Amino acid sequence: MQAGPILVYSEYTADLPRFERLLSAALPEAEIHYARSLDEAIPHLERATIFYGWGFPAEFLSKMPKLRWVQKMGAGVDDIIDAWPCRPEVILTRTDGKLIAPRMSEYVLGAILNRSVRFDLARRQQAHRQWNFFEIGTIRSLTIGIAGVGEIGTMIAATLRLLGAQVIGWRRTRASSPELEKIFVGNAALPEFLGRCDVVVLVLPLTSATRRLFDADVIDCCRPGVHLINVGRGGVVDEQALLRAIEGGRVGHATLDVFRTEPLPQEHPFWTNPHITITPHVCGPLVPADVVPHFVSNHAAFLAGKPLMHVVDLDRQY
Amino acid sequence: MQAGPILVYSEYTADLPRFERLLSAALPEAEIHYARSLDEAIPHLERATIFYGWGFPAEFLSKMPKLRWVQKMGAGVDDIIDAWPCRPEVILTRTDGKLIAPRMSEYVLGAILNRSVRFDLARRQQAHRQWNFFEIGTIRSLTIGIAGVGEIGTMIAATLRLLGAQVIGWRRTRASSPELEKIFVGNAALPEFLGRCDVVVLVLPLTSATRRLFDADVIDCCRPGVHLINVGRGGVVDEQALLRAIEGGRVGHATLDVFRTEPLPQEHPFWTNPHITITPHVCGPLVPADVVPHFVSNHAAFLAGKPLMHVVDLDRQY
Repeated sequence: MQAGPILVYSEYTADLPRFERLLSAALPEAEIHYARSLDEAIPHLERATIFYGWGFPAEFLSKMPKLRWVQKMGAGVDDIIDAWPCRPEVILTRTDGKLIAPRMSEYVLGAILNRSVRFDLARRQQAHRQWNFFEIGTIRSLTIGIAGVGEIGTMIAATLRLLGAQVIGWRRTRASSPELEKIFVGNAALPEFLGRCDVVVLVLPLTSATRRLFDADVIDCCRPGVHLINVGRGGVVDEQALLRAIEGGRVGHATLDVFRTEPLPQEHPFWTNPHITITPHVCGPLVPADVVPHFVSNHAAFLAGKPLMHVVDLDRQY
Repeated sequence: MQAGPILVYSEYTADLPRFERLLSAALPEAEIHYARSLDEAIPHLERATIFYGWGFPAEFLSKMPKLRWVQKMGAGVDDIIDAWPCRPEVILTRTDGKLIAPRMSEYVLGAILNRSVRFDLARRQQAHRQWNFFEIGTIRSLTIGIAGVGEIGTMIAATLRLLGAQVIGWRRTRASSPELEKIFVGNAALPEFLGRCDVVVLVLPLTSATRRLFDADVIDCCRPGVHLINVGRGGVVDEQALLRAIEGGRVGHATLDVFRTEPLPQEHPFWTNPHITITPHVCGPLVPADVVPHFVSNHAAFLAGKPLMHVVDLDRQY
């Protein structure tokens, strides 16, 4: 494959110098341009053959006539798949979930421990100088359900099992995972799966099959007081239904890293709900040192005309 | 050994019925009295031969002429050892740390993840409806030091290592622990140990050798911004020195479950310090179902005249 300029795009000002340092060391021969905005990217759209980015306007891709390969900085591609230029010569790859999963696993574990150790209660007491003993829970007594058992969900499950939690899984299709006590498959099995979980962790991609899958009826299948954690995609959850389920006590707490609209709009009712913990999509954006080796390997394969890793199946949408 | 009445004492109203249910099922023949206050205990002090308790006034013990065995509900005995009725026929046992350690490990892990995932920052941002991306840390990049590597410290270390943290240890005497990357021994090694740790976890018993061991000079050996977690005994730390170290930035955050005076006095400056997380000594008080089997085994040994488990060494003070 003919080499050509690489365009690297990240909205995060702090990331770009780190990508630059790592990439220029790994690929000293390559012509690489870096952009953190539309304006910075425009001069390079015409010539670039490789695009490595996250958070870029999807229509970029149709303005890149020489484009041959898009490496998404991230595991999810729902944001670009609708505007995908569907030219047979352009390959789309996503980042190996295994590179993202360790930090996501720690996020999920931290969210679970926050509630089961009851640091939230401790904070409320501290604010009022209250010394009231409470008994701390243990993750060993929890059944935790992972909805979406791909690379990332599997690693989250493995981490939670290390600590003695009972971990079960749900996925839309196929059934296999050695990291789970039990796996439920297909929409018909969702109510039974949810009925067993003290904590539900959503790690689902956003596709036409998962959009708003967690609506009022599905959420109502959860155990009363369930802790819902979403580190997948916000569009999988009906946000109004979630608010009503919190009001009614069906959902005891929600820890949300992803939202239907990001950044979460200023007027959104989630911000002030005491039963919701909001983080600004911190799971998924990539730490350069974690993921650059994956890009470098794929780049070598691309130049050699060999198959790339983690090519997106455009029908499956992930 | 002659059987005699057992007096069970816990200040926690919610605990006593659970101890009662478990003990009466396990020891249906035994005469057992339950007390949650001085008044409730007094009628039984004269006759009881066995005392199983936590949080009781230490001078109780000198008012129990028939006393033969005290089983402390907890791993630490510093609160009763000064008033110990040094009669050779009275045995003092403490609870197996391994029964307490799993919940304590989850507390420590939760405290570490709270800071490394930066849920604290997320909460501050949420309070102001701020959507500012931040990079989450990973425990795999942390060196965590456990000061006090007994039964409990060893299990905490094992839990943290499961998640990929580098774990080193410090203890006053003896040197051995397969759960640690490296062990430092003795007061002279404390500065080097502390200089390597991003997080320091105190699991030390309170003895004449550890009282106020963490004074200004010792704290000053820590890495700037260290996260100090104390789940051992409050008296090990000079609280004024800790406050000054937080002010100066040497200590970045302190998660404290134990204090020199408990309950923490209303006017104590810890309550309002944003760099201190306070929990009301929730690590250590025992969950009845976790520990009753240990008491029952020791009780059988006591009746059979066999050696008890976890007899306290009164010279060592633990």
